[in-house]
Amino acid sequence: MTKEVEVAEHHSGKDYHDPPPAPLIDAAELTKWSFYRALIAEFVATLLFLYVTVLTVIGYKSTTDPDLDADQCGGVGILGIAWAFGGMIFILVYCTAGISGGHINPAVTFGLFLARKVSLIRAIMYMVAQCLGAICGVGLVKAFQSAYYDRYGGGANTLADGYSKGTGLGAEIIGTFVLVYTVFSATDPKRNARDSHVPVLAPLPIGFAVFMVHLATIPITGTGINPARSFGAAVIYNDAKAWDDHWLFWVGPFLGAAAAAFYHQFVLRAAAAKALGSFRSNA
Amino acid sequence: MTKEVEVAEHHSGKDYHDPPPAPLIDAAELTKWSFYRALIAEFVATLLFLYVTVLTVIGYKSTTDPDLDADQCGGVGILGIAWAFGGMIFILVYCTAGISGGHINPAVTFGLFLARKVSLIRAIMYMVAQCLGAICGVGLVKAFQSAYYDRYGGGANTLADGYSKGTGLGAEIIGTFVLVYTVFSATDPKRNARDSHVPVLAPLPIGFAVFMVHLATIPITGTGINPARSFGAAVIYNDAKAWDDHWLFWVGPFLGAAAAAFYHQFVLRAAAAKALGSFRSNA
Amino acid sequence: MTKEVEVAEHHSGKDYHDPPPAPLIDAAELTKWSFYRALIAEFVATLLFLYVTVLTVIGYKSTTDPDLDADQCGGVGILGIAWAFGGMIFILVYCTAGISGGHINPAVTFGLFLARKVSLIRAIMYMVAQCLGAICGVGLVKAFQSAYYDRYGGGANTLADGYSKGTGLGAEIIGTFVLVYTVFSATDPKRNARDSHVPVLAPLPIGFAVFMVHLATIPITGTGINPARSFGAAVIYNDAKAWDDHWLFWVGPFLGAAAAAFYHQFVLRAAAAKALGSFRSNA
Amino acid sequence: MTKEVEVAEHHSGKDYHDPPPAPLIDAAELTKWSFYRALIAEFVATLLFLYVTVLTVIGYKSTTDPDLDADQCGGVGILGIAWAFGGMIFILVYCTAGISGGHINPAVTFGLFLARKVSLIRAIMYMVAQCLGAICGVGLVKAFQSAYYDRYGGGANTLADGYSKGTGLGAEIIGTFVLVYTVFSATDPKRNARDSHVPVLAPLPIGFAVFMVHLATIPITGTGINPARSFGAAVIYNDAKAWDDHWLFWVGPFLGAAAAAFYHQFVLRAAAAKALGSFRSNA
Repeated sequence: MTKEVEVAEHHSGKDYHDPPPAPLIDAAELTKWSFYRALIAEFVATLLFLYVTVLTVIGYKSTTDPDLDADQCGGVGILGIAWAFGGMIFILVYCTAGISGGHINPAVTFGLFLARKVSLIRAIMYMVAQCLGAICGVGLVKAFQSAYYDRYGGGANTLADGYSKGTGLGAEIIGTFVLVYTVFSATDPKRNARDSHVPVLAPLPIGFAVFMVHLATIPITGTGINPARSFGAAVIYNDAKAWDDHWLFWVGPFLGAAAAAFYHQFVLRAAAAKALGSFRSNA
Repeated sequence: MTKEVEVAEHHSGKDYHDPPPAPLIDAAELTKWSFYRALIAEFVATLLFLYVTVLTVIGYKSTTDPDLDADQCGGVGILGIAWAFGGMIFILVYCTAGISGGHINPAVTFGLFLARKVSLIRAIMYMVAQCLGAICGVGLVKAFQSAYYDRYGGGANTLADGYSKGTGLGAEIIGTFVLVYTVFSATDPKRNARDSHVPVLAPLPIGFAVFMVHLATIPITGTGINPARSFGAAVIYNDAKAWDDHWLFWVGPFLGAAAAAFYHQFVLRAAAAKALGSFRSNA
Repeated sequence: MTKEVEVAEHHSGKDYHDPPPAPLIDAAELTKWSFYRALIAEFVATLLFLYVTVLTVIGYKSTTDPDLDADQCGGVGILGIAWAFGGMIFILVYCTAGISGGHINPAVTFGLFLARKVSLIRAIMYMVAQCLGAICGVGLVKAFQSAYYDRYGGGANTLADGYSKGTGLGAEIIGTFVLVYTVFSATDPKRNARDSHVPVLAPLPIGFAVFMVHLATIPITGTGINPARSFGAAVIYNDAKAWDDHWLFWVGPFLGAAAAAFYHQFVLRAAAAKALGSFRSNA
Repeated sequence: MTKEVEVAEHHSGKDYHDPPPAPLIDAAELTKWSFYRALIAEFVATLLFLYVTVLTVIGYKSTTDPDLDADQCGGVGILGIAWAFGGMIFILVYCTAGISGGHINPAVTFGLFLARKVSLIRAIMYMVAQCLGAICGVGLVKAFQSAYYDRYGGGANTLADGYSKGTGLGAEIIGTFVLVYTVFSATDPKRNARDSHVPVLAPLPIGFAVFMVHLATIPITGTGINPARSFGAAVIYNDAKAWDDHWLFWVGPFLGAAAAAFYHQFVLRAAAAKALGSFRSNA
């Protein structure tokens, strides 16, 4: 709520520097253990993410099913499900940020790739690790909840009755925009230079972004905003309806992530407009 | 819980300085890209705020409507709605604090203008951007939820049955006081000088203030405390009752913000009483 | 989870110092504006605390009363009420910590007085300000909710049916112990010396302590753990049952606060045992 | 989300150092007051943990029992119970981290012992203190809730109907893995060196990990992931079914903690692979 931002821009010696763009293909990183360790961390984190969240969904539905003579108010509720998704992202980003960057989501990886924060090869390998982790995580839920897993929809993302594909796509795009915009804001090197502890605090708003989007769009699409989450559930549940709608949960999040990357890099960080801005204020 | 505050006051060399009051009209800022970037950030943040929160409200009502043979306990609840409003403010203030100050609310802008933290021209332009963003955000919800939007009240703020206009106005005044008082406390330059990371932590209590006020006043007014939020919903819903009560949601928040600005500047920061206080302790 | 604590104890030059005990009567502080400002801050904070929390209680009961043909699941729930109490303490401690220490609770003031962190005169004046603030806060709720305030118990603390006075007293003692123990841990000067930003983070665990105790003891006593909160509601509600049980909500919290002060000062900080400990490790 | 991690590894002068492994038996620590203070802190913290959480469970069940003509939606819900467990761990780890390391859980102690962070004698004594604290905490609940304690299952962990022992064991293993993995991530000396305030923030993700696991596995085992919690409730409730399943709540958490210790020490910190990694990148 100050105008320090403007001041900083006119200093010739900036107090931060943007790292150089990541190369598209960085062969050197393939020779390092830290690269493979990052893949393992993404795999494990996505596995735990899907395991806890889908188990919460199935457990909620089994404890409140009126056909089982259960207490309809006795579950964690949609609010609890939204907390499960948001809270897991909070702790997993916190735990893996120093190892892999804490993506746990192909859309986040895609957004960071577009902003040239990660190389192409790293982006692709992360997405593979995330999808494999998601499949294993949902697989564990199916193994543990064999009596209920198929009965209660398997945690798969599908378009709810009464909503068009356009609405579902829009909900996924804006939802992912909220998430990836928060990720960019929280990891901005300009911001970090001033507040060196920002990265440590970053997991909390990122987790809250996931929580918020789930509150808003569970009634529409069940909330994807994470292609690995949708893919893992679709593979294990393997239902025609889930596969029919599945493209929504890749196209929507990738478009939303691209929009957030564009908004952050070209509007907020003003990559293109900086020259013009300097020109005007010096005129 | 120490008495360091008193000690600091008697130092001639204070460890902080209050920035000079913002000019009423600062023509220079109109020539800077950062000013327009701030307007864009306020527009986008208010759009996302209304989109997520009103979508949560409509989604909650559609999933629990007994006329649709739905599970009455199956929604996020009023608690979830309160989380949506508070949580979105948390993440949006976190994301936009470095760009625009993270107001996202004309009442906050008004309070900061009264305390001379922003210029008049910036205050007015922010409010315009916030109102336009709110209209677009609610418009998106109407587009996505066309089947339910009008049916479930459109997220508009109205006075609930059985409450007088005076009660509604009082609830809005005190609710906004809680919010703007938290904003002032969190962004106080005196505090920031001692704890340089306070601004980074500030979004959390600000978000919680919004959460708390929603818990308390949703049954009375639906909780405005943000004229842009009320205006955007009123424009898109366009219902006579919503427009009849609409003045409450501008007058109340502006009075509450003014009271909070007065309380912080003249009582807590003791602009007027400092001379007297120094006089007495030196006597 | 390291053993650094032990190391630090054996340094002759400690990296912190305990401030000297506050005098019982400090006439000098009566002449300072900051003392009266602190009283105002305690008054306003306790007023806002009671206003928001009791309004949440009454609003919850009015929206879910089956006699009003209301939706029984349509309120914020006891979980929402617990959040209201805990969340308000979080933001109010955050806002007033630098002004008055952020007590907002006579039991906290009493515990800090026993540990000689505040003078006797300050402790008494704080309690008076807190009780007056609480009365005004509940009075506002009664004015705003005149149709419902008396009907739904006025937010007063009473012992629930089926619980003995001993149980209620025990619940208040342990609940206040949890709160005041957290306050002492969060404001320990030994800790602050090592982590200078701890005080800024302290409001969050303090707010959570209040939240947790409400989850546990709302079914027993409605959860006092704050004599000003109980007193303000009793004065405005003015019901025989509330007054009959009222002593519980002063004796219990004060005993709990005293136990927490004793535990922190004599066990954890080891005021008495330090000599013995040094003796043994040097033997 | 940077590659600084790799850079740091190739510096010969690391900016952190791992403390030497704790000895199995450290006779010296037995002579220090700080050791006994740590045991007292673990005892008190585990007592408060069980007291608040089990009281929440019993209170929830008593306020929503349809046989008592109660309001079925009127309790804190499973979401509130999950908050009670997670929130108490947050505040108790925050309060005791500087005294005892804030374990409050034999599985955490076991994991840290395997990683040689605590000595064998300390690990055993902590577990004894935790189990005694848990028994006392649940005993208090039974004393306060004598009318309801036995009726509502006494807060004991048992396998729910329809789940095999293997499923219960798996749920406990993975749940404890999530918790202990978070503990290791939050207390990593490598991380702390760069962000000196991390330990202060650590309690929040640790508390959230407990919250998340409860959301997911309450329907299966009631969620142990803490042998002291399960043991304390089993001793006081003293029911055949609770004792029959009891081994699950020791074996599962200990296996999960061991897996997390292995994953953190040998995969993420790469104790074994470091030599190989350096070799390759120098090739």
